Amino acid sequence: MSTSSHSYPMSSGDDQHSYIYNSSYQKACIDGNEEKTRRYILEKFDLLNLNSDLKTLNIADFGCSIGPNTFHAVQYIIDGVKSTHENRLVPLEFQVFFNDQPNNDFNTLFRTQPPSSKGEYFSFGVPGSFHGRVLPRNSIHIGHTSYATHWLSEIPEHVCDKKSLAWNKYYIHCNNLIEDVTKAYKVQFTKDMRGFLEARAEEIVPEGLMIILGQCLPDGVPHFETWQGVVVDMIGDCLMDMAKLGVTSVEAIELFSIPVYFPQFSELEREIEQYGSFTLEMMEIISHPYEDIPLSNKFMTSMFRAIFYTIIKEHFGQGVVDELFDRLAKKLTKYPIDFKECKKHANYFMLLKRK
Amino acid sequence: MSTSSHSYPMSSGDDQHSYIYNSSYQKACIDGNEEKTRRYILEKFDLLNLNSDLKTLNIADFGCSIGPNTFHAVQYIIDGVKSTHENRLVPLEFQVFFNDQPNNDFNTLFRTQPPSSKGEYFSFGVPGSFHGRVLPRNSIHIGHTSYATHWLSEIPEHVCDKKSLAWNKYYIHCNNLIEDVTKAYKVQFTKDMRGFLEARAEEIVPEGLMIILGQCLPDGVPHFETWQGVVVDMIGDCLMDMAKLGVTSVEAIELFSIPVYFPQFSELEREIEQYGSFTLEMMEIISHPYEDIPLSNKFMTSMFRAIFYTIIKEHFGQGVVDELFDRLAKKLTKYPIDFKECKKHANYFMLLKRK
Repeated sequence: MSTSSHSYPMSSGDDQHSYIYNSSYQKACIDGNEEKTRRYILEKFDLLNLNSDLKTLNIADFGCSIGPNTFHAVQYIIDGVKSTHENRLVPLEFQVFFNDQPNNDFNTLFRTQPPSSKGEYFSFGVPGSFHGRVLPRNSIHIGHTSYATHWLSEIPEHVCDKKSLAWNKYYIHCNNLIEDVTKAYKVQFTKDMRGFLEARAEEIVPEGLMIILGQCLPDGVPHFETWQGVVVDMIGDCLMDMAKLGVTSVEAIELFSIPVYFPQFSELEREIEQYGSFTLEMMEIISHPYEDIPLSNKFMTSMFRAIFYTIIKEHFGQGVVDELFDRLAKKLTKYPIDFKECKKHANYFMLLKRK
Repeated sequence: MSTSSHSYPMSSGDDQHSYIYNSSYQKACIDGNEEKTRRYILEKFDLLNLNSDLKTLNIADFGCSIGPNTFHAVQYIIDGVKSTHENRLVPLEFQVFFNDQPNNDFNTLFRTQPPSSKGEYFSFGVPGSFHGRVLPRNSIHIGHTSYATHWLSEIPEHVCDKKSLAWNKYYIHCNNLIEDVTKAYKVQFTKDMRGFLEARAEEIVPEGLMIILGQCLPDGVPHFETWQGVVVDMIGDCLMDMAKLGVTSVEAIELFSIPVYFPQFSELEREIEQYGSFTLEMMEIISHPYEDIPLSNKFMTSMFRAIFYTIIKEHFGQGVVDELFDRLAKKLTKYPIDFKECKKHANYFMLLKRK
């Protein structure tokens, strides 16, 4: 019941290069919103009052990856529900559905689950693309997704086609420098976001909540002006350097474009509002604890390696990965990111309620 | 919500040594019971008539391992339910909960799921020991387990204690040669089987079914007289040979005993009948397609390797595994199993209904 498109999970396992050890940037944002999420659950989630005999509360994290962030997110949702419904007569059992692509490293996810969670909720791994249905109708009370919906279900049409106006040339992501490329990415993003919301609308019960955390571009800011965009362009430059030395080829780079799209804030807002099955209860830019601290080159290199490891390995081959990120580290030392000059992604918090 | 005892999953992955490629013996038995299971579902499962508005039917396979047997078993249960309730007004969605220990290879399980199953049911991996609760109360309509309940939650007390009467000496499993060892194993089996049934009694809805397939000993037959027992004793002999050569040590063998117990048929029957939350609708010995065909040495070596790989690797170290099973193959050639003389395990089919 999932779409069959190709997928690129975060770097698996739990070694120094894994997503587990390189997702503290994302964690900071999830943690920073703990209080806010709890407050909104208190304010907006009256399902339990409506169903006083409800015995099992079902939570799903869509695109959970391998932790530890998914465990934090789930725990503060459970804490929020518990604190607002302490005096229930019917004790609640919690079920948590951890969803990600079938090639996600569920073994590591299960192995690294906090021991404390074992008495707190029943855990389920749910393999499947969140661009389609992965759970039964009306089965989820609170859905959650963080830093996942910018991943597209596929590379937009034509961006790897040299004959197309939407060809992305030697760029490896949507940096907003070529208008037709941006358009192609936007079309795919719109399609995927609708697919995501349509599936969630079926899965989430009426009055249920959907929490979306993620990154977007501030209005009017193109991706190539943000430090995140600059780093990815730099990865592209490193690949071109390696092509010149024969470690990879220009042809391989021409056929590569990362299926990730960051919409601008109001573009995303419009998209969500147009979709009729949820009411947009809240959408706001949130501050990020790391926002005003320059990130070290080592930190950035490790973070981008953990995120892009699988897609780069699959397209260019395993042999390219180490050298590529060594080169990225060196390039960042030679041309340090000017965090004062660079713009940056905005982190958003969005709360939807199923009509 | 699972017990935290040590666990030894079947050999992971999908290479020549994996359980996936070496579980056709178990598969033959599951397949051979397809028609029977369907018939019993037709006769005994009237839950859907009682709940004509039920929208989601939940099936769990406890101790599912990594396939493909679990997929077969689940599919024939679904086919059985469908064929008996074709004319329902409310269309059913199926949820399947694949349960096994957290260190089971769920990645391979998800990766090898038949594509056809994707439109048939929603899949969930459920990490946790089936000796305890792994699912919410009253959440499962049909439970299933095959060739799993002979695995104990831990090695029985004292069987690895040289000072105890229940010390298993140089034997590596319960072959019924030492009475106190058999008693210790039986105590642990009784405790574990009750734990299993207690947990299932909470998870399975009233009128729900629990199907148990497995192996036991025919009444009056000790394990050492069966060909299965002979092969495991032979693995023990190979380990002793290796200890003499210094590849492993006698001390390591003295501290090793496989946490598997095969009860006799009527012993198992009594155990189940004493447990009050289920009615024993059916318990019978079933024939096995391979029963009267002598198994090749290669087949037996591969099957036992896939089953015991993890526990042997963890106790004796990775380096021992290849040599041990090479030696087993050679020993089987030198001392072929006399299938006419040897007794054999009985395969049983058991159907329980939740009161």
